[in-house]
Parts: sequence; structure tokens; C-alpha cells
Amino acid sequence: MGLLHPSREELEIAKVLHAFSDPQRLCIVRGLAGDCAPRRCGSFDLDVTKSTLTHHFRVLREAGVIEQREEGTARLNSLRREDLDARFPGLLDAVLAAAPAPPPAVVALR
Amino acid sequence: MGLLHPSREELEIAKVLHAFSDPQRLCIVRGLAGDCAPRRCGSFDLDVTKSTLTHHFRVLREAGVIEQREEGTARLNSLRREDLDARFPGLLDAVLAAAPAPPPAVVALR
Repeated sequence: MGLLHPSREELEIAKVLHAFSDPQRLCIVRGLAGDCAPRRCGSFDLDVTKSTLTHHFRVLREAGVIEQREEGTARLNSLRREDLDARFPGLLDAVLAAAPAPPPAVVALR
Repeated sequence: MGLLHPSREELEIAKVLHAFSDPQRLCIVRGLAGDCAPRRCGSFDLDVTKSTLTHHFRVLREAGVIEQREEGTARLNSLRREDLDARFPGLLDAVLAAAPAPPPAVVALR
């Protein structure tokens, strides 16, 4: 069974804002926004347990902020920028502009 | 003792996004955005208990989204648009554009 992703039409502003409303999830979103290729969950150097990291990625996916694709035992993550921009124009850019830049380690650990 | 309000410099993006991330709080924010004059808490026709309403206003105030001023036994609420726009350019407008319009009753009940 595949992972649950809401369609573009199913995105809800309150859920998307909730997904953005955590410093670590914001860090993930910023990291994905700066990348062309999808990234593995483990490529984010966040100081949290694996289960917390999995939780953060699930919140982001279920809100429709990211797409997760399974490749072997890994999950590849990408930002649903087009869907977010279509439904909530300007929101993602405003959030990215406001979110603090990730520390260099996050950028280096691909 | 007055009510706690973070200064403009103290505003945090994650807290502000969390304050926005509830449908009823979004309704309050939209209502305040459409108004020139401050509004009493009781002027919002939300289907919640008084204590829930008080909680929502407190979350909004402590995140720096609204200013609350005590006038007798009432609290007058206004949106901190200038502070939000200064710290997080485009965010409030994007959220307001994405948030569903309040039902007519909310507009009528001043």
C-alpha cells in the first residue's frame, strides 16, 4: 500500500500552517526548498530521535507539504511547491523568507 | 499587571504559524483584519465555549498576532499587522488570502 498524500484540492490551510509551525519541520521544508533532487529522511542533520523525525515527515506529508516516495528501504522527500503555490499563493515563499536559514551541516549532509 | 505581549523583535515564525494553524483562530484573524476598530472577544460568533475562546485569544496574543487591551471588564482585540508585516513580509496577506471567508454572522455580530 502506498503512502497517503492529500490531493491538491484536499489541502487545508490550517493543516498546512500546523505542519509549518514547528522549528524542526521548518528546517526540513527549508532544506527541501533549496534542493532540486528528492532527499532521504536521514539526510537532515536534526538533533531528534528517529521516531520524532518520522513523525515530522508524516505531519508534513499528511498536510500535503511534501511528497514521500519509497525507494527500497528509504523514503525520498520532495516539496510540493506547485500544489502549495496553486492553492495558497505566496504562503510558502513568505514562510521560507521568514524561517531561519539552516546551519551549514544540514546543507553539507546529503 | 498588564497582559503579556512579545515585542516585534521577539516574534518567532514557528509560534506565529502555530497561532494561525487553527480554523477558529484563523476566523478571528480574518475578522480582525477586516475591521478598523478593535473588537471585543464576545463579538466573534464562534461555536466554542468561553474558555476555549479565551484560550484562542491568548495563543494569538502570546504569539504576537494580536494586541489585547483591557477596557473595564472587556478585552479589545486588534491585529498587529505592522509588526507581522515588518518581521514576516507577505505572510499575513498569504494566510488571509488562503483562509476561508467568515460566515456572514461573524461580520454582522459586532
